Amino acid sequence: MHSHLRRKSTTVLAFALLASVVTGLPSAAQAQEVALTTVQQPNADRRRLSPDQVREVAPALEQYTQQHLYGEVWKRPGLSPRDRSMVVVAAMIARGEAPALTYYANQAIENGVKPAEISETITHLAFYTGWGRAMAAVGPVRDVFAARGVRAQDLPPAFGALQPLDLANDTARATGSNQFATVSPGTVAYTNGLLFKELWQRPYLSQRDRSLVTVSALVAGGQAEQLTYHLNRGMDQGLTQAQVGEMLTQLAFYAGWPSVFSAMPVAKKVFEQRAGKGAGK
Amino acid sequence: MHSHLRRKSTTVLAFALLASVVTGLPSAAQAQEVALTTVQQPNADRRRLSPDQVREVAPALEQYTQQHLYGEVWKRPGLSPRDRSMVVVAAMIARGEAPALTYYANQAIENGVKPAEISETITHLAFYTGWGRAMAAVGPVRDVFAARGVRAQDLPPAFGALQPLDLANDTARATGSNQFATVSPGTVAYTNGLLFKELWQRPYLSQRDRSLVTVSALVAGGQAEQLTYHLNRGMDQGLTQAQVGEMLTQLAFYAGWPSVFSAMPVAKKVFEQRAGKGAGK
Amino acid sequence: MHSHLRRKSTTVLAFALLASVVTGLPSAAQAQEVALTTVQQPNADRRRLSPDQVREVAPALEQYTQQHLYGEVWKRPGLSPRDRSMVVVAAMIARGEAPALTYYANQAIENGVKPAEISETITHLAFYTGWGRAMAAVGPVRDVFAARGVRAQDLPPAFGALQPLDLANDTARATGSNQFATVSPGTVAYTNGLLFKELWQRPYLSQRDRSLVTVSALVAGGQAEQLTYHLNRGMDQGLTQAQVGEMLTQLAFYAGWPSVFSAMPVAKKVFEQRAGKGAGK
Repeated sequence: MHSHLRRKSTTVLAFALLASVVTGLPSAAQAQEVALTTVQQPNADRRRLSPDQVREVAPALEQYTQQHLYGEVWKRPGLSPRDRSMVVVAAMIARGEAPALTYYANQAIENGVKPAEISETITHLAFYTGWGRAMAAVGPVRDVFAARGVRAQDLPPAFGALQPLDLANDTARATGSNQFATVSPGTVAYTNGLLFKELWQRPYLSQRDRSLVTVSALVAGGQAEQLTYHLNRGMDQGLTQAQVGEMLTQLAFYAGWPSVFSAMPVAKKVFEQRAGKGAGK
Repeated sequence: MHSHLRRKSTTVLAFALLASVVTGLPSAAQAQEVALTTVQQPNADRRRLSPDQVREVAPALEQYTQQHLYGEVWKRPGLSPRDRSMVVVAAMIARGEAPALTYYANQAIENGVKPAEISETITHLAFYTGWGRAMAAVGPVRDVFAARGVRAQDLPPAFGALQPLDLANDTARATGSNQFATVSPGTVAYTNGLLFKELWQRPYLSQRDRSLVTVSALVAGGQAEQLTYHLNRGMDQGLTQAQVGEMLTQLAFYAGWPSVFSAMPVAKKVFEQRAGKGAGK
Repeated sequence: MHSHLRRKSTTVLAFALLASVVTGLPSAAQAQEVALTTVQQPNADRRRLSPDQVREVAPALEQYTQQHLYGEVWKRPGLSPRDRSMVVVAAMIARGEAPALTYYANQAIENGVKPAEISETITHLAFYTGWGRAMAAVGPVRDVFAARGVRAQDLPPAFGALQPLDLANDTARATGSNQFATVSPGTVAYTNGLLFKELWQRPYLSQRDRSLVTVSALVAGGQAEQLTYHLNRGMDQGLTQAQVGEMLTQLAFYAGWPSVFSAMPVAKKVFEQRAGKGAGK
């Protein structure tokens, strides 16, 4: 099997070149990729499928996309297009839909997200969606960065001064992790050290935005269990109830209704508890 | 759309065939694509990997596929091959396995699913599995439609008369959503309007089939929380307990045992409650 | 970074640039595939993205990968590199990240996993992560097997003598399944027959390793519900508490923190119950 298969893979390159020369036309699936990457001027039309291509399969889906998703949802008050882009980028990474970032990471930059913030979001979500999901985002985002001339000095460095840690809050947080110290000592050590004392304290993404992408990833990944802590943390850092409500509306479309409706009772309880606390003050 | 797409496919076939002659075949990954697209007469053998290719990695997996999955499960009484195809198409979309639709959407048509129903399923599942999952299904299904000569007039239109709404039932349903009106007003507004007053009332997929693909997507996506409502709704519209049981058997193979066993207690409770109600009548 | 990126592209994508002149070029993502499959000497550096490519998007992510993931986590005592590879291969399959297996299946073999064990893991996980996820693993693993000269006789056969069943334990297990006999008779029949009387009794993967990959897939897939049974089963077959703790540490990085923290309370309860039982003896 060895030599047989190796011969195969060696000849593929010739095959691809020859085929390109002969036809100038890749397969239907590849054609979508090419249509994207050959666009020289990135713009809001760089969708993976053209509206006409979607209409050839599902005319109503394209209609809803234009009328409701682009025509209404993205323009709703209560959450800026910049924040909506952050929500969608996080959702795409969390859901293993990284190829769509060729479009959405570009759109995010147009909506005001800095390339450095996209970069730091990927690093942040490596911890919240797994290394593989983050690494899958690198390729598409690299294409977007290259097309837009993003340079090394535009990106957050690997090392750098960390923001001071809020010790009281972090000690309270650690109480939750430490109950599992005997279950998985390694996980707890990395949680208390690398994750919360280093990653979260990097200054290249605001605390509020780190919560925004974490909450988005948790909802989009169907992981409501850790939502209570991260919603509270994000709201302590400036996310408003109205913004969270709009994040959920955005996520209903990009992660599906069921993911959002599983998050709804958790969000409701958090809102009520915070209102109760506020009233008690 | 028809002739345009067919022309493209034809050049792709020529390109692949020529390359095969010259080189004796592409890489393993590309070979799967080519094997698919060079089949002139779509049939049940259009698998992404040939049985021999699977045997080169996991002989037992291919054996189980032939003997149990194709040899038994697909032929079990209690659920038609047409419905089993709908279950699998929904599961593939929900699980982000859209490339497999090149095979399964084709097989669905052979099993009696109308192209219009596949189209409407994609639109429907945009809401239940997220826009990205639905859009990912468009490319592979477009290839299948093109190869089979599906025309624009074979598809459901973007707009059209809606079926009359069962107001009493919809009011009861809205009670569930409305408890979250202060949590995410946008989500609740789109739920009560676009989702249930428009999408569900489009006549291009029966109420029973909308429930079938919704339930399949929920089970396949590991989202048992919304299952109670959708199982009841589907059974009100004609899904029988025996059919739901067979849907779960089909999903055990296509979405994995754990997803199905997480759905089992929910289904059991729904069945018992409905039996209790029936007995009380 | 721009010119740097372009220079790299020129060297890495030599053939692609040529194709680009003639036609319109494959995407960067496709180029990575080619870069991989043309590597003649598989080695531990066969990553899908080079460290430099990752640094061009997320310098800190690459830094964490080198310093913490490769520099520490993979080397932690308590779980062998061989077992860590099994954990990661299972996680990749469960999470639909099969393309990464081009790297991780190769690394697994270098870490001492036998090709036959990878093969049997794929067949095993067809049942625990769905047929589509398993089939998606076949292509990448086939490339790895071919590059390493793995032959048909190195793989587990489709048929073969089964290990004797522990009837007492299996009867206890069946009690859990049988409560759903009226919900989905087909699922329960295949659970009690094909899954536990045949698949689990195949001798090509140890009982302990079957539990290791099952537990890894459940955690990585966010399916904590079936974890109690499979953790207990695995620990009965030799998995130690320390090993499970390290599996969770490995999975924190590869499946994300939330998946692991959803598994933590389940693992804690299992450990405490087993300790209680042990103390009672």
